Parts: sequence; structure tokens; C-alpha cells
Amino acid sequence: MTRQELYSEIKKKKSFLCIGLDTDLKKIPRHLHKSPDPIFEFNKQIIDATHDLCVAYKPNVAFYESLGSVGWEALEKTADYLKKFKDIFTIADAKRGDIGNTSSIYAQAFFGLMDFDSITVAPYMGEDSVTPFLEYEGKWVILLALTSNKGANDFQLVPLNKGGAHEVAGDVKMFERVLKTSQQWGNTDNMMYVIGATRAEMLADVRKIVPEHFLLVPGVGAQGGSLQEVAKYGMNKQCGLLVNSSRNIIYASDKEDFAQKAREEARKMQKEMEKLLGKL
Amino acid sequence: MTRQELYSEIKKKKSFLCIGLDTDLKKIPRHLHKSPDPIFEFNKQIIDATHDLCVAYKPNVAFYESLGSVGWEALEKTADYLKKFKDIFTIADAKRGDIGNTSSIYAQAFFGLMDFDSITVAPYMGEDSVTPFLEYEGKWVILLALTSNKGANDFQLVPLNKGGAHEVAGDVKMFERVLKTSQQWGNTDNMMYVIGATRAEMLADVRKIVPEHFLLVPGVGAQGGSLQEVAKYGMNKQCGLLVNSSRNIIYASDKEDFAQKAREEARKMQKEMEKLLGKL
Repeated sequence: MTRQELYSEIKKKKSFLCIGLDTDLKKIPRHLHKSPDPIFEFNKQIIDATHDLCVAYKPNVAFYESLGSVGWEALEKTADYLKKFKDIFTIADAKRGDIGNTSSIYAQAFFGLMDFDSITVAPYMGEDSVTPFLEYEGKWVILLALTSNKGANDFQLVPLNKGGAHEVAGDVKMFERVLKTSQQWGNTDNMMYVIGATRAEMLADVRKIVPEHFLLVPGVGAQGGSLQEVAKYGMNKQCGLLVNSSRNIIYASDKEDFAQKAREEARKMQKEMEKLLGKL
Repeated sequence: MTRQELYSEIKKKKSFLCIGLDTDLKKIPRHLHKSPDPIFEFNKQIIDATHDLCVAYKPNVAFYESLGSVGWEALEKTADYLKKFKDIFTIADAKRGDIGNTSSIYAQAFFGLMDFDSITVAPYMGEDSVTPFLEYEGKWVILLALTSNKGANDFQLVPLNKGGAHEVAGDVKMFERVLKTSQQWGNTDNMMYVIGATRAEMLADVRKIVPEHFLLVPGVGAQGGSLQEVAKYGMNKQCGLLVNSSRNIIYASDKEDFAQKAREEARKMQKEMEKLLGKL
């Protein structure tokens, strides 16, 4: 999906919601355990109930891996099912990143085998760990910049030395360097950034460096970020935001009505987003 | 496996070799394709032919993921097979790292489900992305510090600002901060560091910060690092090194003699290591 297509879907659906498929066997309704593939069955019913209210789905790969080959099969089936929805952007939340030849192999897994539109990538290993993902035409890298967790303080927010061979003009903190340096690798049509909603006010600083890029914003809801704040500081003239919500939506009920309840929660967010988009 | 046990194996086998199982369907000998599980069959024969010459095996998870659920099954079988060898330390080279609850789920995949002794973890997301892996008694985190690829220049080698709330005494570069800060999370009995062999001379700086920790050193051979240099700058009084070699060993031949040829290559490295260990 291109940037223009994504923006069109946002306008059409009046939503910039991404639903996180953090599907956990221990949390899904009990009656689904009778199904031959409870994880996929849960995802399918969530997708069927919510796809007109969101523009993206983001399976969190850890949850599938923790079930071994069975979980991996459920992930493949979910990716495949999502491809039927031409109006949906898909994100493999995998946070991969390795030396070049290994990143190429990860790209093959998520773009070749499973045909996701995008993958989250960790920047620590630098350029050649990221660019193999950018070699896939029409696919996206969503690079970790400033995450929503407490640990973001440990390295992402560390101030850098001014001057010297490593300086990029105006560098201040590590995450800002990640934003700046990585713009030499990709562009607004194949790269987005993860910026946590728990630091919404910092979105203003982020927008100074990447005014046009789409940002994937986790941490609204369960992790405590506010949608209004995110929109206030982060929205650009093409919206430029995908706001993720996982547990608040998919675990709104653990009864037979789980998909309906998920829809109600997604609807609430979409309605709020519609208001925020009205200002565009 | 404890640090003391690992050191005992190193002394007994006169080797600090780790063999990387970067098993690629396109590179394994053709005759194995007749097997019901060529990837596992290849690994099994490599392990059978080399386990007395090395102390560790390191499957590179990307290669298994790129085959989907079938590859994941081969990884599970490999992990299971390796458990039979009580003298072998196992490393899931996965480079994971996510917010706390997701890292817990990754830990469950690699320590709970598959029972690896250790996993490689990326530090970018900080403390709460790493500590869930440390909660498993007897398991190890191998944290990326200074990697062997060119991209290490982009962020790992960036100089930090002196002074201020973020400073750890004597901080210079980002990877040094990773080494220092992470010592507050783990210790020499549950944490190792990845330090690339392509920067062997920097091992002297690394040893100033982590004199006692084990280091996992990739990049000898195919990536151009020298074993002598690594030992010269990186060895401590309990050896403190696991030097990885993947392609040089496992793809020494693509014929029916591949396991024998792998053994010959592993033997060469073990002999060289024996000499270097002699100085201990």
C-alpha cells in the first residue's frame, strides 16, 4: 500500500486506527479453544468485526512465536486472511534487525513468505541491518525511534556529543539521531517511525525532524497515552499517524460477544479520531 | 549451563568455538532434500560430526523463520536435539527486544518452549526490554554491544555528551554506555555481550568495562576478523570468549562429505584455540 493509498483510506474510513493482534491463548474466550486453530479463529472474528473501523492491523509476532510452529502457522493464516482486505495496511510487529545477510532473510520471511506491508525494525545495528528490508518494492520499514516504555530513557533519550565526525546537524538525543540518519536510507514512501504515545509532547520535536513521515504510535490506552495529545503534537496535513490499540480492543470481553465488544471499543476510538481528523 | 560449567567445558575440550547453524535450504547438500526435514537432518549431521570440538551452537533464527512453520519446527527439533548434549551451551541468535510484556513472551518462546540456554537481545529499548529474559533461572542474555557490521558506526560508536543526568562515569560511546548500564540489570553469571571480531582492537576497551563477562564474538572468518587478535585483546583468565564461526564450517562442502568437511574446519579452529588457551 502506498502512502497516498493509506491517506485515502484514512479519509474514507475517518480513522487512523491500527488494531494490535497481541493474541494470547490465555486471554481469548474459552469457547474458541474448541476450534482447530483458536488463535486464527480469534483473529478472524476480530478482523471481520472491525475492519471497516481501522486502517491497519499489527500482529505482535512474539505471541505467535511463543506457541512454536503452531503459532507460526496461525500467523501465516492471519497474514493471508488480511490480504483479502485491499483497504488494510498490515504490520508485522517483529522488531527485527541483524547484519545484512540475516536481515535479508528476515525480510524474506515477512515480505516474501507472508507478504506483510511493513515490519517494525530495531535500529541499533545501523544502516546495513535496515536497508535489506527497503529493497522490497512497495514494502515499508517502521523503525523504532522513541518507544513507549520506561527503558526508552536508557539509550534513546541519551544526549549526544556535539561536534566531531559523527554529528548530524542539530543532533541532540540518540532517537533524534536515529530519525535523522535513517532518512538517508529510506524516504516518506517506504519508512515510518515508532514513537510512543506516552511521550506525546515530544511528538512536536519529532515533527521538526520528520514532518512528512507516517508515525506508528503505540501506547494509547493500556500504556496511558492520550489520543488528543498525540493528534495535537503529531498530526500532519496527511494525518501522518497510525495509532495502535491492542488489549483495550481485542480483550474488551472474554465471552462469546468478544468480537462485538471489540467493535464497540474500536468504534469509540474511530469516533474520536473522526473528530480529530475534522480539523485537517 | 553456569559460567563455571562453561569454563570447565572450554578447558576440557580445549576450545571456545561456537558453531553457527545458519542453515539455508539453498546451501545445504542436494541429497538432503530427499529427507523429510532437510534442515534438521543437516543440523543433526553437523552436530554429530562436531560436538566434541566446540562448546556452543548458535542457530540463527532468521533462517528458520524464513521457511515459516516448517522452519520453526526444524528449529524446535534442533533445540531439542542439542539438549541431549550436556556439554553444549545453546544460543538462540534471535536479537529480540520489545516492551516488557512482549519480551516476557519472547522469553517464553526461547526459554520456556525451546529451552535454549541463552538468547541474543538488542538493547535499544532499554532495561524493561531486557530484564524479562533474566527472570529465567539459569538462562543467559547475550546483549548486542558492538556488532561486526559496518552499520555499527551509525549508532553504537556515536560519542555521548559528557555530564548531565545521563552520564555514567567515563562514558564515551553508545556501546560503552550499553556495557555499563546493563551491568545494573544482570551480572557475569547471566549476561554476556556480543562484540564483533572485525573490531578486535576495541576488545581492549571493552575489557576495561567488562573484565569478567563472557563475550560472544561473531565475524571471525567470513566477515574477516582474526582469531589471534580476538584472543590477544579479549581473553580473560576464564577465557571469557565464545568465538562463532558459521559459514566457514557448515558450508565447507556441499557434497555428501559435508559433515566430515565441517569437522575438518572445526578441528582447524579448535587446534588454533588450543594454542591460544595454552597461555591461560
